[in-house]
Amino acid sequence: METFFSFLEKRVDDCSSLLCIGLDPHLADLENPTPEAALDFCLGIVKETSTYAAAYKPNAAFFEYFGAKGWDALSELIAAIKAESQRLGSMIPIILDAKRGDIASTAEAYAKSAFDHLGADCITLNPYLGKDSIDPFLAFPEKGAFLLCKTSNPGAGDFQDLLVVGATGHPPLPLYIRVAELAQSWNTGNNIGLVVGATQPEALARVRAAAPDLWFLSPGVGAQGGDLATALKSGLRKDGKGMLINVSRSIARAENRKKAAAELRDEILQVKGQLNF
Amino acid sequence: METFFSFLEKRVDDCSSLLCIGLDPHLADLENPTPEAALDFCLGIVKETSTYAAAYKPNAAFFEYFGAKGWDALSELIAAIKAESQRLGSMIPIILDAKRGDIASTAEAYAKSAFDHLGADCITLNPYLGKDSIDPFLAFPEKGAFLLCKTSNPGAGDFQDLLVVGATGHPPLPLYIRVAELAQSWNTGNNIGLVVGATQPEALARVRAAAPDLWFLSPGVGAQGGDLATALKSGLRKDGKGMLINVSRSIARAENRKKAAAELRDEILQVKGQLNF
Repeated sequence: METFFSFLEKRVDDCSSLLCIGLDPHLADLENPTPEAALDFCLGIVKETSTYAAAYKPNAAFFEYFGAKGWDALSELIAAIKAESQRLGSMIPIILDAKRGDIASTAEAYAKSAFDHLGADCITLNPYLGKDSIDPFLAFPEKGAFLLCKTSNPGAGDFQDLLVVGATGHPPLPLYIRVAELAQSWNTGNNIGLVVGATQPEALARVRAAAPDLWFLSPGVGAQGGDLATALKSGLRKDGKGMLINVSRSIARAENRKKAAAELRDEILQVKGQLNF
Repeated sequence: METFFSFLEKRVDDCSSLLCIGLDPHLADLENPTPEAALDFCLGIVKETSTYAAAYKPNAAFFEYFGAKGWDALSELIAAIKAESQRLGSMIPIILDAKRGDIASTAEAYAKSAFDHLGADCITLNPYLGKDSIDPFLAFPEKGAFLLCKTSNPGAGDFQDLLVVGATGHPPLPLYIRVAELAQSWNTGNNIGLVVGATQPEALARVRAAAPDLWFLSPGVGAQGGDLATALKSGLRKDGKGMLINVSRSIARAENRKKAAAELRDEILQVKGQLNF
């Protein structure tokens, strides 16, 4: 049976890319503040970059913003990515960036919404409520979830960096490392990954050590100042995979998006070459 | 200027109640799996219980489940609660249970969606991303946010109970206490509360000690086994307020919802009487 991460790896092989392209229709990027404009903006990005996209990551917030019509636009966008994938002959995984997290009976409704109704392949989740808030998503054997681990925003340290008392004889560890360790142990279905920002290479390397098998979704290269080569060196798995480099604005706002995506894809390949992958 | 918690306290005084009534249209409760049935179910609860509701808490997941039409139903439900409030002559605060949490530019879209477009007065948020993920919600001076602190689900302990290293000379504290301490320090606008489950009275008492001024939203009485009197004794603020007892199923599934709500309201008043409030 196909799992989410075997599906993702197939696409990564097909396009020789580790690029996850964020679809974040910020109001500032739209000609008109309408759901139609948000959809058009994202469809334009998909059309211009599909050859180089290992995955797409639409952000629920910017559609939810438009209420019911935004929800329809999100649904239409996901359908359009699937159609574009079929045209390419290689299915591109769709990661819904929703950062949900709730008790089990509520999480079940969110999971059905994302996977059954919208048709996303994977979702981002917040781990603060613990394993039983994740389980309803893992109950979909072909779907996946990236748990927030170490994010790239300024306030990430408020809680994620707090030192947690270890087992007797073990030194304290940052909370985000505990999240990584538990996620690694929960990943019995090849369906759990971690969100680890690309802006802090030391953190990336520590999470990689704590979760040697997991895929990372790593935002922060480009607009937020993360260095691509350093991030890849710190976070890639031993097989030269295991890391999706997420970019949004630096593609969306490029004069030539296709060229911007191609260059980023090639830059990643080059770094991988230097690392002998 | 009115803040969210001054607004809430006005309603609490008007109805002599600390009852927050959850509006969670679980599929199992609906005659048909449609957004219309979800809306009708919630409208029925509102109509029968408005006299005793200090607040209503619609749960976004069960509307999101129905996609665009669900989003319209949620919007209609919030408008109907406002209309019912006007009929009563006392506005009932609406807390959107959404448990959102994202980086600032995304959080801004979620905040506008909840407050400007849906018209909710308050929202539940997940604190894992830190202060800058909360700020866009606090930027609405008359709105409020309850941060997840200590939840009532079985997996809550996976992260929330982890012991965090304290300042030099101070013993380690559970992560949820650190959340409470920071929330208390961030509450300069009388707009931050905490979600603290009613199922663990010791935790309630510890959070109360760490956040003496904050309002708690406390689920877990009834279906999840929390004892009302014990919870109130552990969590009430020194002024006999500061705690919303959230109930969903025990009202929604009662034969006579009005009677069930009245009895719970009175039971709370009785316990407060015993405590000399």
